[in-house]
Amino acid sequence: MIRVGIVGGTGYTGVELLRILALHSAVEVAVVTSRSDAGLRVDALYPSLRGYINAVFTVPEVETLAECDVVFFATPNGTAMLMAGALLARGVKVVDLSADFRLKDAAEWSKWYGMEHACPDLIAEAVYGLPELNRAAIQQSNLIACPGCYPTAVQLGFLPLLENKLIDVQHLIADVKSGVSGAGRKAELATLMSETGESFKAYAVSGHRHLPEIRQGLERVAGTAVGLTFVPHLTPMIRGIHATLYGRAEGQLDAVQALYEQRYADETFVDVLPQGSHPDTRNVRGSNNCQISIHQPQGGDTVVVLSVIDNLVKGAAGQAVQNMNLMFGLQEDAGLKCVALYP
Amino acid sequence: MIRVGIVGGTGYTGVELLRILALHSAVEVAVVTSRSDAGLRVDALYPSLRGYINAVFTVPEVETLAECDVVFFATPNGTAMLMAGALLARGVKVVDLSADFRLKDAAEWSKWYGMEHACPDLIAEAVYGLPELNRAAIQQSNLIACPGCYPTAVQLGFLPLLENKLIDVQHLIADVKSGVSGAGRKAELATLMSETGESFKAYAVSGHRHLPEIRQGLERVAGTAVGLTFVPHLTPMIRGIHATLYGRAEGQLDAVQALYEQRYADETFVDVLPQGSHPDTRNVRGSNNCQISIHQPQGGDTVVVLSVIDNLVKGAAGQAVQNMNLMFGLQEDAGLKCVALYP
Amino acid sequence: MIRVGIVGGTGYTGVELLRILALHSAVEVAVVTSRSDAGLRVDALYPSLRGYINAVFTVPEVETLAECDVVFFATPNGTAMLMAGALLARGVKVVDLSADFRLKDAAEWSKWYGMEHACPDLIAEAVYGLPELNRAAIQQSNLIACPGCYPTAVQLGFLPLLENKLIDVQHLIADVKSGVSGAGRKAELATLMSETGESFKAYAVSGHRHLPEIRQGLERVAGTAVGLTFVPHLTPMIRGIHATLYGRAEGQLDAVQALYEQRYADETFVDVLPQGSHPDTRNVRGSNNCQISIHQPQGGDTVVVLSVIDNLVKGAAGQAVQNMNLMFGLQEDAGLKCVALYP
Amino acid sequence: MIRVGIVGGTGYTGVELLRILALHSAVEVAVVTSRSDAGLRVDALYPSLRGYINAVFTVPEVETLAECDVVFFATPNGTAMLMAGALLARGVKVVDLSADFRLKDAAEWSKWYGMEHACPDLIAEAVYGLPELNRAAIQQSNLIACPGCYPTAVQLGFLPLLENKLIDVQHLIADVKSGVSGAGRKAELATLMSETGESFKAYAVSGHRHLPEIRQGLERVAGTAVGLTFVPHLTPMIRGIHATLYGRAEGQLDAVQALYEQRYADETFVDVLPQGSHPDTRNVRGSNNCQISIHQPQGGDTVVVLSVIDNLVKGAAGQAVQNMNLMFGLQEDAGLKCVALYP
Repeated sequence: MIRVGIVGGTGYTGVELLRILALHSAVEVAVVTSRSDAGLRVDALYPSLRGYINAVFTVPEVETLAECDVVFFATPNGTAMLMAGALLARGVKVVDLSADFRLKDAAEWSKWYGMEHACPDLIAEAVYGLPELNRAAIQQSNLIACPGCYPTAVQLGFLPLLENKLIDVQHLIADVKSGVSGAGRKAELATLMSETGESFKAYAVSGHRHLPEIRQGLERVAGTAVGLTFVPHLTPMIRGIHATLYGRAEGQLDAVQALYEQRYADETFVDVLPQGSHPDTRNVRGSNNCQISIHQPQGGDTVVVLSVIDNLVKGAAGQAVQNMNLMFGLQEDAGLKCVALYP
Repeated sequence: MIRVGIVGGTGYTGVELLRILALHSAVEVAVVTSRSDAGLRVDALYPSLRGYINAVFTVPEVETLAECDVVFFATPNGTAMLMAGALLARGVKVVDLSADFRLKDAAEWSKWYGMEHACPDLIAEAVYGLPELNRAAIQQSNLIACPGCYPTAVQLGFLPLLENKLIDVQHLIADVKSGVSGAGRKAELATLMSETGESFKAYAVSGHRHLPEIRQGLERVAGTAVGLTFVPHLTPMIRGIHATLYGRAEGQLDAVQALYEQRYADETFVDVLPQGSHPDTRNVRGSNNCQISIHQPQGGDTVVVLSVIDNLVKGAAGQAVQNMNLMFGLQEDAGLKCVALYP
Repeated sequence: MIRVGIVGGTGYTGVELLRILALHSAVEVAVVTSRSDAGLRVDALYPSLRGYINAVFTVPEVETLAECDVVFFATPNGTAMLMAGALLARGVKVVDLSADFRLKDAAEWSKWYGMEHACPDLIAEAVYGLPELNRAAIQQSNLIACPGCYPTAVQLGFLPLLENKLIDVQHLIADVKSGVSGAGRKAELATLMSETGESFKAYAVSGHRHLPEIRQGLERVAGTAVGLTFVPHLTPMIRGIHATLYGRAEGQLDAVQALYEQRYADETFVDVLPQGSHPDTRNVRGSNNCQISIHQPQGGDTVVVLSVIDNLVKGAAGQAVQNMNLMFGLQEDAGLKCVALYP
Repeated sequence: MIRVGIVGGTGYTGVELLRILALHSAVEVAVVTSRSDAGLRVDALYPSLRGYINAVFTVPEVETLAECDVVFFATPNGTAMLMAGALLARGVKVVDLSADFRLKDAAEWSKWYGMEHACPDLIAEAVYGLPELNRAAIQQSNLIACPGCYPTAVQLGFLPLLENKLIDVQHLIADVKSGVSGAGRKAELATLMSETGESFKAYAVSGHRHLPEIRQGLERVAGTAVGLTFVPHLTPMIRGIHATLYGRAEGQLDAVQALYEQRYADETFVDVLPQGSHPDTRNVRGSNNCQISIHQPQGGDTVVVLSVIDNLVKGAAGQAVQNMNLMFGLQEDAGLKCVALYP
């Protein structure tokens, strides 16, 4: 059994890790930390876990965590970078669900996250945990930077077009809509039900932290600088991300559907829908799937890609477990076989 | 492998059966019928099932269904009673999720359901599929009448009080709130999002079809006639039932908490919360659990029981699978180990 | 023009007062205070008010407020009692939307609100602002204690039965469901959309602050002590309260429908629906109406009253304006003619 | 008093007209038709109108309607074109909220709406009822084609850029999100709460009926053919449209904010928010306002315009009343002074 530690078990990605790992047959949840709730049973805070998780929240300490085989950080940004080094030194694998190791450029990271990076040297070591792009490196890595939720949906949607140089990379548009759980479990006015229910809005149009991460990912695939307009929106639901992606064709766009189907044929968690489909976020709710469809409205030169994920699963905890499976040589979908909750 | 047939696979209870059975290791989904969608792949209608269910909808026919070991009816009322006899005669077990075999009195059934009962003789043979009440009989039965969603939440909440004759059975009140999926997948004005979102209302106060079913169940336990006021409400969410039950104590109400804990100690799917708790429907969403808490406000003579289930799982498809597991001697929670989807 | 001041203009009842008063032809909004947002334009915080409200938030000070004809307190509990005396002494009328003057017993108030009452002598002077019960006193009063949202819905629902001594007052049940805006505009985990959307729960079953207020109101009408079980619930919508009230008939319950219609015939804001109706909270959303229907299921001895209001209008700001209209001799519905926003 | 008739009073735009006109001081609602509900009181179907609308639904007949000064068609497409001619001939003004007279090219209309146009000669006579573009013509017209909801939000957002030739008109993108009330009050599976709640999806990416209408409007302003990619989405709320518009700058984009403010300075219902703002659909809910903000992310060459309306008000009934006011020489905002319902 793989002994797992979760640092920051009280946020939505933490409890989602617990939901998934509770039924993962190769895993034992050994440590769940929460500074604020130390001493409390995990299922007292989350009654949905009663009968599945027996743990008690403990204070996060390297000594305790070092007894695990792998530690997940489901913490606010800036925490994992303080502890990852010590754990790696003790032979513990680290999967970071926060943004600490996502950007390769520490200065860029500091600019967007508003603090100095505590261990810039580990950045190079970290592998960006998008298995559909980086599988081999993940299998060899001890430190995974799990992608953000928006970046996952956007990158999976754009990849085949970029890999095949089919669109003008100077003018990419990602119009993305997220459920409110993406904002995390924090006492904030902006995400009260009275503020976000029955309403829709864009936010951070001038620049969202996921912009440099998406750009970095797309540039790596495109092999060149890209121009990206990224507009995130808040939609009145709890789970789900819907990315609507726009690119301008460089030439004839034959067989894009076939191209996508081929690119993702061996990917368990990326599902290219039949031509003419419109993916619906509910069809991946609670699952680790990304469903994608491709359109070229009126046969014009603009290609429209629709890409949906559950932000807490493929956009966070599910993808983290997928990475863990790869790191430990398990079957990639171990613990992740789960049909979306419809309706 | 148990060969399963599902008649009426296009409604919410049908697709929920598919969600559960897709991952049930002892089961093979052999037949899924739908008169209106015959010929269509099941996952074309329900993209959430892509990769999990390979079936194609077929026309419901006894010949085909008779090759199954068990057939679930997830049909509108009035269908199962037309086919159950023929299947039973062919040695097929039947689990009916509709109301056809729930009421023991055929005349009463006709009054509430507005049609003659097609096979009143089978009514006696049918076992009411509430395992927490009827486990032994279910294990021996070939024909199960699965309880309705409201009746499940209400009966599980009242049982210990009635079994121990602690409350005045002449004046029971069940104020119950349901998500809109309880109304089924039917094109109706009343359940449009524009009609049910952001609004709350009672309905059928003069008499709902689940009233006689609940009364029959409570009377069986109480051993006497009961007086029950049942007020169902529609609440602006998709899944979940919350029953708020009121009874007046006959005498001193010591140790009710302990009584509930004891009554349900061996029940996998009934979870009595710690004293002072308030169950939340989301904590059972997608799971087969019933969470219950008991209160006596201000130490008065009124006891208040709060009981929550997911109407599509413990209130329908999950309970049906629980019954199937019992009928086939499987572990009772086979295929039903599932953590609720929070948030 | 009546010069109006609003203390605590940043909460939901404050902004709702502004929505209503912006179009009230006899009123000028002169002062809007907010300690935290002083200096900010009101419509910068609430863009819905752009073009309607020109005010800037100021620090709450008696000097400034004393220039108003009437001051509304839309503040947390414990604030109005500190300023009301000084304003009254300056000849300013006070309408308090908080709980400070609702309970006639200062000791009881302290018990439920967890602080000493700062001016118990003013309690006697305060008139409970339920116009349908207290119209004449309101017209003569300078200090109004506006009823809470739950108490408004429950009292209007029970009044005719109590006034006519038709039910057993020892065993009243009020099962009430509220939208989340009732919890106010405060940064709290419990009212995040991820916590309250798509879920339903009861809370404070052991005792909610509105319990003594409701009991006091019912006892005044009944002329005797009453036994009340009050169970509040949180329902996944923003606005609206639905009270489902249960009482046991003392005798024959003829003509209850007629009784209700007669009792409220001259009340602009209480609307008794035709026999057999089920009121829906959306039909009063944004309006000052209370819609009521009465049922006697299966002709039994239990009477069920359904009563709906918009918690922010008839349950708070609308009722406050209705009181102001009465205090100033205006038409009672001035500024309150507003059709509910359906759908 | 202007005598008003409403044909098709049972849909959401019909009942919204009634909500607005009930309080319009210059108007008397004389006739409300509904073939299916003839004989029923309007407020029996819509209890939100109790006390405000006394009418009874009648069968739609030219004779009765001809006694009105103006008739609104809130009907499915294809109805207004059958009756408009007869009413105009009788001197009745017509405001059509359906699509019958929106497209100037009858063949194009037939292609998108799937039927022959019944009176192509009236098309030329009809004025497109977007007051911010067409005010003078509307004032002189007897037949108004009210814009669709999507076209209103998109055109108001793009107008200043197009009028000033600031963007590449060959590659416009309109990514637009609508609440479900836009689908109308029809018994359909696709708009059930269980299907649309807690989920987000695009639809009709290959071509939506509002595409030619938007294109026609933009081309008229641009004075040339435009290339437009229009992707509509369904968002889990009832009211509101949020358009996110993308255009590529032709040159330097100085002072776009000032340009927008200037363009709409005299428009009562178009409100340009301060630089850096993000409009929120709830801030226009129930009001006739359009709120707009303009961004140029990272100073790049892509301009992003955010434009929100209430689809049933500025996108339908409110705009229809605004047109009526202009036709009859009333103040343009008569009956339309209404603060949005927040929260």
